[in-house]
Amino acid sequence: MTETNNNNQESSSNPLQQVTFLLHKYKLVEGLVNLQDDTNPSLSESEVQKQNLTELQVFLDQLHPADIANILEALPLEDRLLIWGMIKTDRDGEVLLETSDAVRASLITDMGTQELVAATEYLDADEIADLAPDLPQEVMDDVFRSLPIEEREQLRAAMSYPEDSVGALMDFDVITIREDVRLEVVLRYLRRLDEMPDHTDQLFVVDRNEQLKGVLLINRLIVSDPDILVAEVMTKEMIKLRPNDVAQQAANAFERYDLVSASVVDENNKLLGRVTVNVVIDFIRETAENEALNLAGLSEEEDLFAPILKSVKNRWGWLAINLVTAFIASRVIGLFEDSIEKLVALAALMPIIAGIGGNSGNQTITMIVRALALDQINTRSAWKLITKEVGVSIVNGLLWGTVVGLFTFAIYQNAELGLVMTLAMTLNLLLAALLGVMIPLTLRKLGRDPALGSSVMITAVTDSGGFFIFLGLATFFLL
Amino acid sequence: MTETNNNNQESSSNPLQQVTFLLHKYKLVEGLVNLQDDTNPSLSESEVQKQNLTELQVFLDQLHPADIANILEALPLEDRLLIWGMIKTDRDGEVLLETSDAVRASLITDMGTQELVAATEYLDADEIADLAPDLPQEVMDDVFRSLPIEEREQLRAAMSYPEDSVGALMDFDVITIREDVRLEVVLRYLRRLDEMPDHTDQLFVVDRNEQLKGVLLINRLIVSDPDILVAEVMTKEMIKLRPNDVAQQAANAFERYDLVSASVVDENNKLLGRVTVNVVIDFIRETAENEALNLAGLSEEEDLFAPILKSVKNRWGWLAINLVTAFIASRVIGLFEDSIEKLVALAALMPIIAGIGGNSGNQTITMIVRALALDQINTRSAWKLITKEVGVSIVNGLLWGTVVGLFTFAIYQNAELGLVMTLAMTLNLLLAALLGVMIPLTLRKLGRDPALGSSVMITAVTDSGGFFIFLGLATFFLL
Repeated sequence: MTETNNNNQESSSNPLQQVTFLLHKYKLVEGLVNLQDDTNPSLSESEVQKQNLTELQVFLDQLHPADIANILEALPLEDRLLIWGMIKTDRDGEVLLETSDAVRASLITDMGTQELVAATEYLDADEIADLAPDLPQEVMDDVFRSLPIEEREQLRAAMSYPEDSVGALMDFDVITIREDVRLEVVLRYLRRLDEMPDHTDQLFVVDRNEQLKGVLLINRLIVSDPDILVAEVMTKEMIKLRPNDVAQQAANAFERYDLVSASVVDENNKLLGRVTVNVVIDFIRETAENEALNLAGLSEEEDLFAPILKSVKNRWGWLAINLVTAFIASRVIGLFEDSIEKLVALAALMPIIAGIGGNSGNQTITMIVRALALDQINTRSAWKLITKEVGVSIVNGLLWGTVVGLFTFAIYQNAELGLVMTLAMTLNLLLAALLGVMIPLTLRKLGRDPALGSSVMITAVTDSGGFFIFLGLATFFLL
Repeated sequence: MTETNNNNQESSSNPLQQVTFLLHKYKLVEGLVNLQDDTNPSLSESEVQKQNLTELQVFLDQLHPADIANILEALPLEDRLLIWGMIKTDRDGEVLLETSDAVRASLITDMGTQELVAATEYLDADEIADLAPDLPQEVMDDVFRSLPIEEREQLRAAMSYPEDSVGALMDFDVITIREDVRLEVVLRYLRRLDEMPDHTDQLFVVDRNEQLKGVLLINRLIVSDPDILVAEVMTKEMIKLRPNDVAQQAANAFERYDLVSASVVDENNKLLGRVTVNVVIDFIRETAENEALNLAGLSEEEDLFAPILKSVKNRWGWLAINLVTAFIASRVIGLFEDSIEKLVALAALMPIIAGIGGNSGNQTITMIVRALALDQINTRSAWKLITKEVGVSIVNGLLWGTVVGLFTFAIYQNAELGLVMTLAMTLNLLLAALLGVMIPLTLRKLGRDPALGSSVMITAVTDSGGFFIFLGLATFFLL
């Protein structure tokens, strides 16, 4: 693990600024050299050029792979590939691991089979498995052939777990010990290692059959008398994850119990590997990000500088759905064209009812989705929640409905129109509250992600429903 | 740290289900006892009652504070306070630390000054500082008086840092050593401790003036020859945070460099404390959650079972803003009432233009906000981004605009109306793209959070703008 000095607030943007600056200098001189090439080639310019290149290379060499990945993501494609070419092969793999999927794909496309195989040589089996979905089949074949048997098995195991499972987060860097030895023996054993795997805060105590018996915390090992047995200081109560557990469950456990690492065992309690906190942090960040992207209808992570057509494609799904719901809403309005013709104010007022309903529904959904993610809702509390949300919507509806009604009266000097606005507002907020609770609960019951699509659905309902309620009431009472 | 067995996927919801079940049983019998009290008091019923209570208490006692906090958050107020009363005083503080702000407030309101002071006795200074904003002044006065001088100073320091700073995440549990001693001496020193602070993955090497010289990784300490000096194995390149750094910067450093703990120093390089990964995970989760809540216009974390009026208040801010923007959009439509009267189809079609524009703008904003959070945008790339988003919007506009135009033609048999739809769609998507890039960039330039309010603003612009573009074009070309 490379650590860097980090003495001021802007530090994390510094590497990017620095590289952009050096790159700019390099390209500027390159431009000059090219300009002179056909007229009067000047050695000194190309010397400067070489010097700039070296400066850039030296700077890149001392950066952490995660910083390099961030720089690559922030650069337009052309510059990105220029910098990528300057990264040493033995660091390629680590950098690829740190980039987002979209940017990783743009880098891999630029590499040959040989280069890709070479890049994986410096990675562990679980890390290769992370890259596997993005690598061409022939590269994976070569990689498999080049691995020693044990690692080949690990790679096969790691690749067999679904993406959002604990197995996908797992690594194989476990140190195992036996319970019937003295701590001094453990310490001597450890001292024979060159280094311990990162995030080793505990050793796993197993028997002859690799069954997990307990864990020995490193901090306990250090403060305990070296003469006592492992069995006397090991902890038997511990988190045991299963490779097929949902990854989110592991993240919850790390967050609740403040873990640095946790064991992964199979159904027979055999130790398979471990999950470490750094992987969990990446998972939490990614999940939060994907949620934000999904909410905005971006089907996947998008490279900031992706070609236009690729971006268009990434954004289609949601826009298409939105178009369908907009058409439906439009047809609902179409039903009432006669009413609008007679009282054109209706056209100006109807978006208010629909808009406020959509916002209010989205507020309710956000509350419910959050509570579902934290496992805080069961059948008994679901009813209480519906009652509460309905109460909130009635208060909000009467309150804001009155404001809207008064506004309408002020503009159109029509008291009945004002009353219809108030009533329509209250009813649409009521609809939003009911569906705001029921949509995510139903999605969950159907085994779906309660967040995904909730927002589209509620907006569709409050739009079409809002138009229908308002125009219907107006037609009934006013015309 | 209590660790629990976690053998199946539903484990995290189990404690809640268990408590709900036991609580239900307890309350059921309580109901029976009360019923019989005035007629024929039966000892056996109240024996069952006592037994149920004990069962519940025993179950609660073995739960981790984080699990208790989660249960409290999931229970309606009455049940919540019943369970809260059963938690032992020495665990009250830890549980309070784990609850959300809204639920914490409901628990603290239920406690007396004595109880609150007692609850803080089991907490460290940095933990008390986390609770301080929620505690009544008289409690804090008592707490200050009861603390030993050193901790009092620490508490004062911890309370002085702003909420989203590194100082607010910092704790004081550092083990310091000198560089001129042998590792054996360090090991002997550590062995004299009862236990090491949680998340101690490194010891801090300081000189006589508490200046930070380096860190000794525990894992390095274990594998190294005990006869060599600390100075020979310590790492001098390390992350040094400053208490006034933005907390997000610390989170980024932990994520990028896979840290378990990091030092915090003052401007003179004097060691003040450390930040640990468990606190960083909580911060990341909370930040992501707040972002989701803010996007939905919930001003703060809301207790799932908050009283209706409190919830109404929490949701006002956004609804009020939304109402203003809806009024403006309504007035824009009002400008064109004559046109709508002449061609009522306009009323049915206009929400399509506004809706798709809003969605498309939100997609762009999500991309830009994410890139800003990762420090991936500078002045040079901003232009490239605007060009790209404009390109995407033109392609999308012509494409979906054509679909919308054909739909319009199919329904209204009016080719010119179809063309106006296509043109209006393209222009509104263009507007959405331009402002989708510029709103977050401008907010950032003004030193504001680029996410906050972006979504409201873009929707306001694409609604009012969309109505104006469409109705304006229609008035110009069709009437």
